[in-house]
Amino acid sequence: MLGAVSLSSTPRSTLTRLRERARTDRADLNAVLDAGLICHLGIVRDGAPVVLPTGYARVDDTVYLHGSTGAGYLRNIDGEPVCLTVTHLDGIVYARSVFHHSMNYRSAVVHSIARRVTDPEEKWFALRSVAEHLAPGSWAYARQPDKREIAATTVIAVSLAEASVKVRSGPPKDEADDIEVGGRWAGVLGVRTVFDPPETDPTIADDGLLPAHVMNRARPQPRSDVRTDHVQ
Amino acid sequence: MLGAVSLSSTPRSTLTRLRERARTDRADLNAVLDAGLICHLGIVRDGAPVVLPTGYARVDDTVYLHGSTGAGYLRNIDGEPVCLTVTHLDGIVYARSVFHHSMNYRSAVVHSIARRVTDPEEKWFALRSVAEHLAPGSWAYARQPDKREIAATTVIAVSLAEASVKVRSGPPKDEADDIEVGGRWAGVLGVRTVFDPPETDPTIADDGLLPAHVMNRARPQPRSDVRTDHVQ
Repeated sequence: MLGAVSLSSTPRSTLTRLRERARTDRADLNAVLDAGLICHLGIVRDGAPVVLPTGYARVDDTVYLHGSTGAGYLRNIDGEPVCLTVTHLDGIVYARSVFHHSMNYRSAVVHSIARRVTDPEEKWFALRSVAEHLAPGSWAYARQPDKREIAATTVIAVSLAEASVKVRSGPPKDEADDIEVGGRWAGVLGVRTVFDPPETDPTIADDGLLPAHVMNRARPQPRSDVRTDHVQ
Repeated sequence: MLGAVSLSSTPRSTLTRLRERARTDRADLNAVLDAGLICHLGIVRDGAPVVLPTGYARVDDTVYLHGSTGAGYLRNIDGEPVCLTVTHLDGIVYARSVFHHSMNYRSAVVHSIARRVTDPEEKWFALRSVAEHLAPGSWAYARQPDKREIAATTVIAVSLAEASVKVRSGPPKDEADDIEVGGRWAGVLGVRTVFDPPETDPTIADDGLLPAHVMNRARPQPRSDVRTDHVQ
């Protein structure tokens, strides 16, 4: 474990291979979580896993999630084991051999027992945190939740006590034989997530309403030489 | 269920809310799966969920995954229930109210029993499919796997018989009162995944090796007016 503030390393969160890719430092965990917009939440239902994407926010050693009280997967989640995973794909790694093709990525895997947040103050704080993580500036700008909306929302807290971070970066790792033979290109195709310019709601005639917290998020790409295209 | 070729709709894969976002047509499922590069695979270990990111490929009604035979999570997966989820984040939805903030996305959730692929022909086919999905053109260009490399790789097949697709797109859905009051911007900030230019492996001196199947994947952005920036 690295650093003074490190994560518990239980058998479940200790990687069984490629330990050099494991980074257990708290700062790395926070960075991976804070850089994401959606997580994949795993629960067990009738003995089978269910994995669903959802928004979230990290505050200190807790990740908050929310959802509609009507969402089936949240109904009986209090006290149940959950796994929360955030992954960033950073690149496609092209090696000389198919076998060594890989991906550059950062991922955080959190194991916890879900806790339903019922305290009104914590629930308000969690809702604000999740909203601000998804859309920074929106909490102060938009109409804040009323009693009915808060009652219609389930908030879940997930502790970061047991978590692991895995990172792959850099060029391919080819066999010496394949490098020696030569003749084949190898390298990395970087992958990034970007914002497009804001699209104003069609019911709004006045484009001058566009607030700075949205406009600045989609600010022009500073690297004019970057060539981009849809992955899809 | 839509269309002639539709998916089974069991209680688990039938959405309990927002049914208008559920699309059960096979073509939609295939499109979401084919557009992704990583999936999140959920398994159950000691009664608790584990969610891990991994590459994959869809072929007809099967998704193939592979991993090192040393990977702990693949060791006892044969015959076990799995959940395979692919999510595309398409936009941040800014509403007049915090409550109606949302995300535009496409997600596919597949419930299945994992099948370990042992037949040599199917294994070879699956390895080629996963490689070609991650890096189209690489199977023919790179050195193909030898016996040792094939033996070191576990391949898993996941059936698409039970799956659901969920899509949200378009502008925010605000309360009539909030729209009437006016004064607040609402709209969508599109999110896309893009490729950067290829970075040649530092051990390769000859940049002229860059093959068309890599170069063309990172071709210049056709829309010069698109302003982009890191989400992270």
